[in-house]
Amino acid sequence: MLVFLSALQSGGVTKSSNVGAALIEMLHTATLVHDDVVDESMERRGQKSVNALWNSKIAVLVGDFFLARGLQMATENNEMSILKAVSDAVQEISEGEIEQMEHARKLDITDETYYEVIRKKTATLIAACTKCGAISAGASEETVQAMYEYGMNLGIAFQIKDDIFDYEKSSFLGKPTGNDIKERKMTLPLIYALRNAPNAEQKSMMKLIRKKYKEASTAKIATEFVHQYGGIEYSIKMMQEYGQKALEALHRLPSNEATPCLEKLVLFNEQRNK
Amino acid sequence: MLVFLSALQSGGVTKSSNVGAALIEMLHTATLVHDDVVDESMERRGQKSVNALWNSKIAVLVGDFFLARGLQMATENNEMSILKAVSDAVQEISEGEIEQMEHARKLDITDETYYEVIRKKTATLIAACTKCGAISAGASEETVQAMYEYGMNLGIAFQIKDDIFDYEKSSFLGKPTGNDIKERKMTLPLIYALRNAPNAEQKSMMKLIRKKYKEASTAKIATEFVHQYGGIEYSIKMMQEYGQKALEALHRLPSNEATPCLEKLVLFNEQRNK
Repeated sequence: MLVFLSALQSGGVTKSSNVGAALIEMLHTATLVHDDVVDESMERRGQKSVNALWNSKIAVLVGDFFLARGLQMATENNEMSILKAVSDAVQEISEGEIEQMEHARKLDITDETYYEVIRKKTATLIAACTKCGAISAGASEETVQAMYEYGMNLGIAFQIKDDIFDYEKSSFLGKPTGNDIKERKMTLPLIYALRNAPNAEQKSMMKLIRKKYKEASTAKIATEFVHQYGGIEYSIKMMQEYGQKALEALHRLPSNEATPCLEKLVLFNEQRNK
Repeated sequence: MLVFLSALQSGGVTKSSNVGAALIEMLHTATLVHDDVVDESMERRGQKSVNALWNSKIAVLVGDFFLARGLQMATENNEMSILKAVSDAVQEISEGEIEQMEHARKLDITDETYYEVIRKKTATLIAACTKCGAISAGASEETVQAMYEYGMNLGIAFQIKDDIFDYEKSSFLGKPTGNDIKERKMTLPLIYALRNAPNAEQKSMMKLIRKKYKEASTAKIATEFVHQYGGIEYSIKMMQEYGQKALEALHRLPSNEATPCLEKLVLFNEQRNK
């Protein structure tokens, strides 16, 4: 959808838009299939995962197969600039995930590191969609750049929203919360709350996380802590700022029928509750 | 080495040959890293595997990262025809491995299925090397096709040799034998021996494999059976036939300084003992 809307925004949907959208869909599917192997997840989108239905070996190969089929399709159609945009994205995504694991369990990560990680692991894929859409429409470099920035900022806002969810108190979301803390993953709400809390509270919270991050009670205490020291408010503010940046990039382009849809996506992210 | 020798055979090494060789090396490394995850192998080339040094998650991502870096390099250099050859190969390789697992544990596979599987899982990569070498030299379609056939037939001969190794009696190879039977993997030496054995012997061997393929004694009995019913001799003959086909494809091209090296590779495979 992002590829097609971005193509429409940038001059019109072409045959290349189909190739770009299919390539990214296959690539995205490949990474999800690989993710389920490494996380040993048995479910995906309410269905059994590939590794659950068969096994990890099959799942790694199915992921590689999807990737190769996507590449084949793109090379058959001579889509060099789309291929370049997508391989840049895959490189950043895998690099980002490795970096996240490197930083994982470090408790003193900065905002800068947080943004660097979410930019690579999440926003890059969304930016690849919007960039490929613009490329497929044969748009100018300025337009491609604007659509890339729109996607990148939308993607960052999207991940901040996900990270806020994990500290939601009410469980009506239908999504389990408190997962990040159980993996000692430091995200914006907690990073800010720690910075904002008085020294003594900060130290005792750090100590609790360091020693008992796996316990359910720690997740509960951390959630209270995040709310108490403004981690949610601050993160919402930052999410909105990145949404704003996405809109500013979009508005550098002449408005057309795609524009209201792309605007609404920013709002949709801010308001979604799953 | 295959890319460079094939380039030299087909007109000369160019900058594209470097890109092709690097792309295939990175791609091959990526598949090995993924293989070690799915096989849970802790060693690779006498060193700890990536999954042993870190973990499976890191190893899947490192594989994806290598693949992406290879692609990036190829797209930056505008190597569309090399990319196409390589993505065709990746698709066939992953398809071949999945097919092998599908056929795995079936005891009644035909020669045709055997060749189909080894063509995809092994020979395709070697053929991609020799094809990319020729493409990188800017060779004609006929030359590219001849180098592709050379690589494909060399690759088939290479895998037959590996499958013969697994039924070697002497252990001086420094390579463990009897592994295929322990995984109920039917390869040419055993497929032929079963076909060539008297009906009663064939049936009792099949029964033994079906019921006790994991036992060390079964591997030993199967090795004797393969030798007794000509499985080794027949497989050596077939390996040499494919080696001959490789040489015939090579000799369709004018001879130059690369030719004796590519000829020797065929002989080297037949004589290697590891």
